[in-house]
Amino acid sequence: MYPRSIQKLIELFSHFPTIGPRTASRFVFYLLKAPDKEFDEFVEALRNVRRDIRQCSFCFNSFEVAEDQGQTGLCVICRDGTRDKALLCVVEKESDLEALEKTKQYRGRYFILGGVNGILKKEGPQNIRAKELKDRMAGEIQEVILALNPTTEGEATVLYLERLLKPFGEKISRLGRGLPVGGELEYADEETLRSALEGRK
Amino acid sequence: MYPRSIQKLIELFSHFPTIGPRTASRFVFYLLKAPDKEFDEFVEALRNVRRDIRQCSFCFNSFEVAEDQGQTGLCVICRDGTRDKALLCVVEKESDLEALEKTKQYRGRYFILGGVNGILKKEGPQNIRAKELKDRMAGEIQEVILALNPTTEGEATVLYLERLLKPFGEKISRLGRGLPVGGELEYADEETLRSALEGRK
Repeated sequence: MYPRSIQKLIELFSHFPTIGPRTASRFVFYLLKAPDKEFDEFVEALRNVRRDIRQCSFCFNSFEVAEDQGQTGLCVICRDGTRDKALLCVVEKESDLEALEKTKQYRGRYFILGGVNGILKKEGPQNIRAKELKDRMAGEIQEVILALNPTTEGEATVLYLERLLKPFGEKISRLGRGLPVGGELEYADEETLRSALEGRK
Repeated sequence: MYPRSIQKLIELFSHFPTIGPRTASRFVFYLLKAPDKEFDEFVEALRNVRRDIRQCSFCFNSFEVAEDQGQTGLCVICRDGTRDKALLCVVEKESDLEALEKTKQYRGRYFILGGVNGILKKEGPQNIRAKELKDRMAGEIQEVILALNPTTEGEATVLYLERLLKPFGEKISRLGRGLPVGGELEYADEETLRSALEGRK
């Protein structure tokens, strides 16, 4: 048995996404071996993130409090007057937003859903920000892009959101399907190939 | 681009063993979403581990300072008078020691090498506690068990240690090789099968 305080930290690291007890124990020994300076830097960075980061009151994206000088409560994207307020792109999580931003193709705003609907009945829409999304529809929005993952859960959530948003009358679109760039035709699954044929141009 | 303080923490988590930037960013958002209580518990556990854990002056195993009431500087295993001081089991790292302890078969002491020799010339024995191991040989030790991983680096280190310890005249052994329990013969590699044949009983 590891000493008690090591066991405690292994247990807490085991709650981190994708981490099991084996990797968690490697983390603990990594931190035990780290020089004081590195360890203190790590603890400070943890504290800073909790102190300095807020969630945007419109889209739930993270932003640095210090950079929001007008105290708008909005993230750097929602604060940007040049972004097209008629477009709203719904994503599951923050890293999906980052991936779309990197393309530099999209100039509207986002909405972070915070999850997807499970495909089992009991994991219903309580996991996602459905109510908040409906509230956003009151604004100038003309098109909603549902940019969710092409997985079973993502598809289920798209169907759910389409029903939810239909009464508002905005145009609703999804991301295009097809072959991923750099991918090979012979390894593509049937559904992807079917979508690629349908979406040909 | 993520806000600066998020980027900083992603960078620090990326230095953790086995972690890349993608998982690191999932860690950051996991911590941002955690309730205050959980977050504070995590930071406290980090601080406690650094404050309360020391390395054994004999075997380099970790121990809780508060439990070493005689201030021996020794871990709970080395402090245990019932352990056989004639046996020394050399392991690469602390989790290997834990794995052996779980068998409840070994009643001697350990020595944590802190690494293995690389197979390239320039990664020489400077990574491992070779000098410290030699120093331990002055005591009552009669048998040294080299319990290193059966990998190329582990083998290279075993050969190196055999040469290093030969002048002391103690018996040197290695862990037995063979089929892992629950493993299947048809999937075993040639070397393992050869070892299993040699080690038959």
